[in-house]
Amino acid sequence: MSSPAIAFAHENHARFLNELKDLLRIPSISTLPEHAGDCRKAAEMLAAELRRIGFDNVHLKEGEGHPLVYGEWLKAAGKPTVLVYGHYDVQPVDPIDEWHTPPFEPTERDGNIYARGAVDDKGQVWMQMKALESLLATGGLPLNVRVLFEGEEEVGGEAIASYVASKAPDLKADFALVCDTELFAPDLPTLCVGLRGMIYTEIEVKGAKTDLHSGMYGGAAPNPFMALIHIIAKLKDENGHILIPGFYDDVQAPSKEELEAWNNLPFDEEHYRKTEVGSSVLVGEEGYNVMERTWARPTVEVHGMPGGFTGAGAKTVIPAKALAKVSMRLVPNMMPAKSFEQYKSYVEKLTPKGVEVTVRLIHQGDPCIVAVNNPYIQASVRAMHEVWGKDTVFIRSGGSIPIVGDFDRYLGLPSVMMGFGLPDDNLHAPNEKFNLKNFRLGIDSLIRFLEEAGG
Amino acid sequence: MSSPAIAFAHENHARFLNELKDLLRIPSISTLPEHAGDCRKAAEMLAAELRRIGFDNVHLKEGEGHPLVYGEWLKAAGKPTVLVYGHYDVQPVDPIDEWHTPPFEPTERDGNIYARGAVDDKGQVWMQMKALESLLATGGLPLNVRVLFEGEEEVGGEAIASYVASKAPDLKADFALVCDTELFAPDLPTLCVGLRGMIYTEIEVKGAKTDLHSGMYGGAAPNPFMALIHIIAKLKDENGHILIPGFYDDVQAPSKEELEAWNNLPFDEEHYRKTEVGSSVLVGEEGYNVMERTWARPTVEVHGMPGGFTGAGAKTVIPAKALAKVSMRLVPNMMPAKSFEQYKSYVEKLTPKGVEVTVRLIHQGDPCIVAVNNPYIQASVRAMHEVWGKDTVFIRSGGSIPIVGDFDRYLGLPSVMMGFGLPDDNLHAPNEKFNLKNFRLGIDSLIRFLEEAGG
Repeated sequence: MSSPAIAFAHENHARFLNELKDLLRIPSISTLPEHAGDCRKAAEMLAAELRRIGFDNVHLKEGEGHPLVYGEWLKAAGKPTVLVYGHYDVQPVDPIDEWHTPPFEPTERDGNIYARGAVDDKGQVWMQMKALESLLATGGLPLNVRVLFEGEEEVGGEAIASYVASKAPDLKADFALVCDTELFAPDLPTLCVGLRGMIYTEIEVKGAKTDLHSGMYGGAAPNPFMALIHIIAKLKDENGHILIPGFYDDVQAPSKEELEAWNNLPFDEEHYRKTEVGSSVLVGEEGYNVMERTWARPTVEVHGMPGGFTGAGAKTVIPAKALAKVSMRLVPNMMPAKSFEQYKSYVEKLTPKGVEVTVRLIHQGDPCIVAVNNPYIQASVRAMHEVWGKDTVFIRSGGSIPIVGDFDRYLGLPSVMMGFGLPDDNLHAPNEKFNLKNFRLGIDSLIRFLEEAGG
Repeated sequence: MSSPAIAFAHENHARFLNELKDLLRIPSISTLPEHAGDCRKAAEMLAAELRRIGFDNVHLKEGEGHPLVYGEWLKAAGKPTVLVYGHYDVQPVDPIDEWHTPPFEPTERDGNIYARGAVDDKGQVWMQMKALESLLATGGLPLNVRVLFEGEEEVGGEAIASYVASKAPDLKADFALVCDTELFAPDLPTLCVGLRGMIYTEIEVKGAKTDLHSGMYGGAAPNPFMALIHIIAKLKDENGHILIPGFYDDVQAPSKEELEAWNNLPFDEEHYRKTEVGSSVLVGEEGYNVMERTWARPTVEVHGMPGGFTGAGAKTVIPAKALAKVSMRLVPNMMPAKSFEQYKSYVEKLTPKGVEVTVRLIHQGDPCIVAVNNPYIQASVRAMHEVWGKDTVFIRSGGSIPIVGDFDRYLGLPSVMMGFGLPDDNLHAPNEKFNLKNFRLGIDSLIRFLEEAGG
């Protein structure tokens, strides 16, 4: 690790961290229209930093939603080109009262930095940015780099998906570097080589023409919540088995070798239950362990059921309509469009009399797998061995990074998913954090990876 | 109808209506803590009016919640005493954007007055007040009167229930006059002689210790919404049949005569479906008509399911907890405490593994029936025949007026439920209204009733 870039990174680490805090202070919540200005502010901060560290052709790519941030450095003649991806948008912060410190006031505590977006994904975007700066400040980049950051990852990534589907010249590259995943365990270098896909939907149920008094009409008028409950109860049984006809047809089981490797991971189910989930027992399908359940099996989840009376106390209303936010995670070989059709027609078939049901697709993403013998995957393994002193483990993630599937489908790019989050980082939840050691070693790892990938 | 009191009421009708509008402008929503001051304001307006029209010993009875309003006029020696009851609190106004005119700006339109509380119950309270004023202004009351208005009817009526249970001397009376019900059809004098009771509950389900990412944990972590859905789906089947063990055991079927009378009511099921409910079909238990379903059969309804993500767009969260607001209507002979225990122990038994369930009772009320041969019921029938020119029909209501059960149980008082709402008055819903003709004839009816009841 005699790299001058790494020396630069170490000398400037305090500044890097302060800059990250500035980025974390911007409440760039992409799903809330009132934060559109904040999303733009975050995009502009990234663009300004790309210009400052020496990138060319830096600009925002504008569309209907939050802008993409683009920059390029293409002066490494004869070297491969990497497409660096990350996202500057964050999840909403509710329930706000469960945060120990305010979500947009980044706070250092116990070796972590706490803030919404700390690990997902601003902390990891800033690792990429600072690895690039360190290399540029000490002689230039060892390969050609295009950077593409988006601001809609948490809301389905429509803008980047359609841009990638356009196969624009600015996307020409040999592989993608995606920093939005996590280590399997502290201090264990990890590459994610598989992701679940997803379909996120809304079921809207309309009953009576107006809200009705449950005393006067209860027993004769349709109740949209009861209808939703009877429908959703038939989507997945109490043992975690999905009941949508045909849903499992295309599921590709992991190979014997992959299952063996998963079984050798340092995984303590009881510790996971206690410290990460915190429930009395784990749930899910019989016959599958936690890795299989979360990486290799599809699932159906309900995220919220807006409508009716949700205040304190009592209101005796039969609401005219109710909604359910329902998503499904898909595993390799399942196709979002087909799964959605199976789900939609099943929901419509389940609709009780007296109500009208509308099923809406909010967004979708393909599942994907990356081959472990890919040379850029191998370059990452070498780089991480130097920085962490250990062999890399290959895992999958139960989460979805739809853009990874798009990079594959439209651009033919394999993605190197080098992420440095930890399993207890509370992403999408109150008290999201990023481990400060991982932020530091993540920058080192990315510097060495780019050097290795440049040959 | 040569009563000087009725002449007075007719001469002063425009003023009566303006005063009602003043009362309707006060947003006395009892369930919302921020409207506690408005509830007090409404109580004070009623107290001031009672003093002005000649009542004695007028005062607010203070407790933990919104005050009771008391007043008395006990100068009719040898005459019976009526306890006049109504409530000054109103329901919340959500969904606010479905109101054609603001809920607290009373507006006359098409022979109705539109406002939250117009029919439930301020318009009917003001009918009582104005009938009393008209009698006092023209020679005094024909019987002794105690007035007791409450401000917590929409939130369970804890204060008045415990006051009535105390059997305080201020409650000594021969019968109660309750104006909080409706005519079965326009221009059809109606007495309500049966009410459903209720239990209003919350089911709280806790799963993981914190909100979790549905990608990372979906398939292994418990989802409180899925748990609620699987529980509630087993409370009532899709045909409206309640599945709680023992729930129907104490249900008292209506008599053959009562069922025959119900069948002779001017009820057009198709009109009811179209204009009142507005759904594609009516729902409910096979083998029971709409009157039986809403008056003589218990039901289970879900009013709202707070928790998780309810904003626009998508958030991929498995919430740590979720709630359901669930109520049950009870019919004569069912006991709230027993029904709640049956429900609670069944819900606990249904609880899937991995989650903790808490079942809370928010409030409850007894079902009740009043005998039609009671002399005060008969006095009301005579009075309404004079005013409306028609025989009174006896109906029940699917709604709950818990205080009627309490008057019976603690004070031995039969209640005369003379109400002048209409079935399409949108109570508890947007665009609540009160028919202006019914407001006028309601005052006349109450004047004549009090005269008849005084002998």
